[in-house]
Amino acid sequence: MLQVKTPEEVWELIRAEFVPLPHRSEHVSLPESVGRVLAEDITAEEYVPDFDRSTVDGYALSAADSFGCSESVPAILPVTGQVLMGESADFTLPKGSCVYVPTGGAIPKGADCAVMLEYTEDYGDGSIGVMKPGAPGMNMIFRGDDVYPGKLILRAGRVLSAEDIGALAAVGRTEVPVSRRLRVGVISTGDELVPPEQKPGPGQVRDVNAPMLTAMLGAWGAEVKNYGIVADDEELLRGKMEQAAQECDAVLVSGGSSVGVKDAACRIIEHMGKLLLHGIAIKPGKPTILGRSGNKPLVGLPGHPVAACFVAKLFVLPLLGRLLGREDAQYPVTAELTESVSANHGRAQVNACRLEQTEKGLLAIPIRSKSGLITQLAGADGYFIIDRDCEGLPKGAKVNVFMN
Amino acid sequence: MLQVKTPEEVWELIRAEFVPLPHRSEHVSLPESVGRVLAEDITAEEYVPDFDRSTVDGYALSAADSFGCSESVPAILPVTGQVLMGESADFTLPKGSCVYVPTGGAIPKGADCAVMLEYTEDYGDGSIGVMKPGAPGMNMIFRGDDVYPGKLILRAGRVLSAEDIGALAAVGRTEVPVSRRLRVGVISTGDELVPPEQKPGPGQVRDVNAPMLTAMLGAWGAEVKNYGIVADDEELLRGKMEQAAQECDAVLVSGGSSVGVKDAACRIIEHMGKLLLHGIAIKPGKPTILGRSGNKPLVGLPGHPVAACFVAKLFVLPLLGRLLGREDAQYPVTAELTESVSANHGRAQVNACRLEQTEKGLLAIPIRSKSGLITQLAGADGYFIIDRDCEGLPKGAKVNVFMN
Repeated sequence: MLQVKTPEEVWELIRAEFVPLPHRSEHVSLPESVGRVLAEDITAEEYVPDFDRSTVDGYALSAADSFGCSESVPAILPVTGQVLMGESADFTLPKGSCVYVPTGGAIPKGADCAVMLEYTEDYGDGSIGVMKPGAPGMNMIFRGDDVYPGKLILRAGRVLSAEDIGALAAVGRTEVPVSRRLRVGVISTGDELVPPEQKPGPGQVRDVNAPMLTAMLGAWGAEVKNYGIVADDEELLRGKMEQAAQECDAVLVSGGSSVGVKDAACRIIEHMGKLLLHGIAIKPGKPTILGRSGNKPLVGLPGHPVAACFVAKLFVLPLLGRLLGREDAQYPVTAELTESVSANHGRAQVNACRLEQTEKGLLAIPIRSKSGLITQLAGADGYFIIDRDCEGLPKGAKVNVFMN
Repeated sequence: MLQVKTPEEVWELIRAEFVPLPHRSEHVSLPESVGRVLAEDITAEEYVPDFDRSTVDGYALSAADSFGCSESVPAILPVTGQVLMGESADFTLPKGSCVYVPTGGAIPKGADCAVMLEYTEDYGDGSIGVMKPGAPGMNMIFRGDDVYPGKLILRAGRVLSAEDIGALAAVGRTEVPVSRRLRVGVISTGDELVPPEQKPGPGQVRDVNAPMLTAMLGAWGAEVKNYGIVADDEELLRGKMEQAAQECDAVLVSGGSSVGVKDAACRIIEHMGKLLLHGIAIKPGKPTILGRSGNKPLVGLPGHPVAACFVAKLFVLPLLGRLLGREDAQYPVTAELTESVSANHGRAQVNACRLEQTEKGLLAIPIRSKSGLITQLAGADGYFIIDRDCEGLPKGAKVNVFMN
C-alpha cells in the first residue's frame, strides 16, 4: 500500500516520473497560435526595423547643425525634401540641411536625429528654424533596435499571448510551430450517475465531473475525448481504461467513491503500468490515484465534484503541462479574509472564495462547502490553500488566492 | 477640439456613453459554454440531491440508537439490509436497526445519520457493533442541501468557468443561454505597412497590430473580421470604416500615426456619429480616439504596437465587455520591482514586466521598451501602471501587476 503524499511530494513525483513528449509539433497560422504552447525557440533572421526610423513627425537633421539654438536664436536650415511613409530614404542629407520626416518614416544617411515639428518654425521660403537643439539618436529607432538576426524572441514552452503573436508578426513568422494538443480521455464511474441531460431517478445524481473536466481541460488547451459513464464493475472499467489509454495521451477516471472501486482502479493501473500514488494529504481530494502506462498518466480523481475540481487544477493541469514542457506559472492575488476559516485535519485544505474589490482593498469571502456541493462553487472567483500545519485562519488574515 | 482625458475619465465615459446590447442571446451546449458570457440568471428548478445521501461508506441508523456507545461498550444493532448505489431507499428503517450504505448512497427514512465503517465491527451474525456514537445529520447531505427550486445558481453577465459548467450540469441545464459573440472589425492604416507574411521593402514594416489585436480579441471571446491594410487616404479609410460599422458590432482602426491621418479619423467618426474622445493621458497610448455610431464603438488606436496593445487591454476590452454586460474583474498580483523605473510625464505610465518567483517573494522585472518595440513585449508576463502624479518607483517598490 502506497503512503499518502503531501502536495509538494506529488508535484515532485510528477517531475520525476513524467518527461516532455518528443516530436509533437505542428504548424498553425498566426491568429490560431494564441494560447498554444510554442514548440521551438524562435530566433529572428532579419533586422526589425530594417532602417533607421523617426518616432515623431518632424525634421531629420544632423544634431550638430542645431547645437546652441534656442527659441530666440533658432538654427536656420534649408529643407531639401521630404521622406514619404513606406518609402526608403536612399539619399544622403547634405550637411547643414534637413528633410521632413513623418512618424515611422526613414531617416536618411547624414542625419542622426529627428526634431519634433512643435520645436520648429516653417519660414515659407524653403527653410525652417529649429528652436531646440537635437542630440544624436534623439527621437529615432535604429535599424535592428527591435530585432537583429540571431536574437532570441520567444522560448519553447511559452503559452503564446497576444503580445507574442505581435512579435511573431513583426519578424514574419506567420506559420508557428506549436505542440500538438494533448488528447485526454475522460471516464466517469458510478452506478448512481446519469448524464446531465437526463432527470435523475430515485437514488441517482447527474454526472457533473465529465462536463466540468471537459470544460476545464478544453479551456486549458487539451482535446477531450469522453468515454461516458461506466458502472462500478472492474472488468468494464478495465476495458474502458485500456481503450482510452490506446487512443489518448492521458486518462482521467473520476468517481468510484466506494473503497472497492478505488481498489479496482489501483489493480487496473498496476496491470496497465505502474501505480505511483494512492492518496494526497489534501482536503478535499484525498482519494486520488496516479499511475502511468509508459509516459501516459492514468489518474483516478475523487468522485465528489468539488474534490475532483481542485485535484484537477492543482495536479492534473501541471502534469499535463509537464508532458508538453509548458511553462505557465500561476501567481496568486493577495486578499483579506472576511471571516475566519477553520482547518484541522493534518491535511492541506483548499477553500473556494469570491473576491470583492472595496476601498479598503481586495476581500476574499470564503465559500463554505460540504464536499460534493458543486453549486456552491458556481460563482467562485478562485481558491486559497491553508497549510497542513495551520489550524485555521482568523478574519482579516491575508490569503493568496489563485484565480479560477 | 476635445481635451485629453485621464484613464479614470475614459472608463467613466465608456459607462456613460455605451449600454449593454439587448436581445443577443443564443443557446450553446454545456461544454461549448466555458468562457462565454451567461445571458440570463440561472435558477434551479429541482432539488439536488433529490434524496438524503451518505457522505461515507458505513451504516445508516438513528443516532439515538448509538448514544452512549464506546469502543468498550459498543451499541449492537442488527443489519436489516443494504442500500445499493443508484437505487432508492424506499423503506423505513426499523427502530433499533441499521443498513449498510455506500458513499453517495440514499439514507432511508428512520435513519438520521451515517456512521463510518471504521467505527463499527461486523460480528458476522447479521449484527454490528457501533463504537462511536452518531449525531443527527452526521455524514449526511440532505435533500436540497446543494440546490432547491428557486435557488439562484449563476447571475447573467458571468464569464462561465469550469466550476460553473459543473453547477449547470448538476441542475440539468445542458443548453446554456449565452450572449452572442461580438463581431469586431479590425482595420490597419499606414502607407508603410505590409502584411506579416510579406518581406518589407525599403521604408516598410510589417503590420503587427492586426494579428496582435485579432489574437487578443479572439482569446477574449470576440469574433474578429479583418479588413486588411488601408493606405493613409481619408476617402479609402472612410469607405472601410463605414463597411466595417455595417458588418460589425465595433470597429478598431489602428495606425495613422501622422497628425493628418488622426485628424482624418476624427472627421470620419464625426461624420459617422459622435466623437467622444481624442487623447488619453497615458504613456504609451496618448493618440487614441473614441467615438460611436449609435451604440457601436469606433476606436482609433495608436499605430505603435506597444501602445495599441496597452490601449486595447485597458480600454477596448472593458468597452466591449460593457456591450455584453460582461462581469469579469481583473485583479493584480503584487510583486517587488527589481530596478527603479522613472516616470515624469504628467501621464499615467504603463510598463510591461516579467515575473519571477523567488524564495524572497515574487519579483517584477520591468521591461525597458521604446514605444514601438513590440518584440520587447514578447515574453512579458504582465504590466503595471505608474500613477500620473508619481515621479517614478524605486527598486524594491511593490507594484500591482496585471497578467497578460
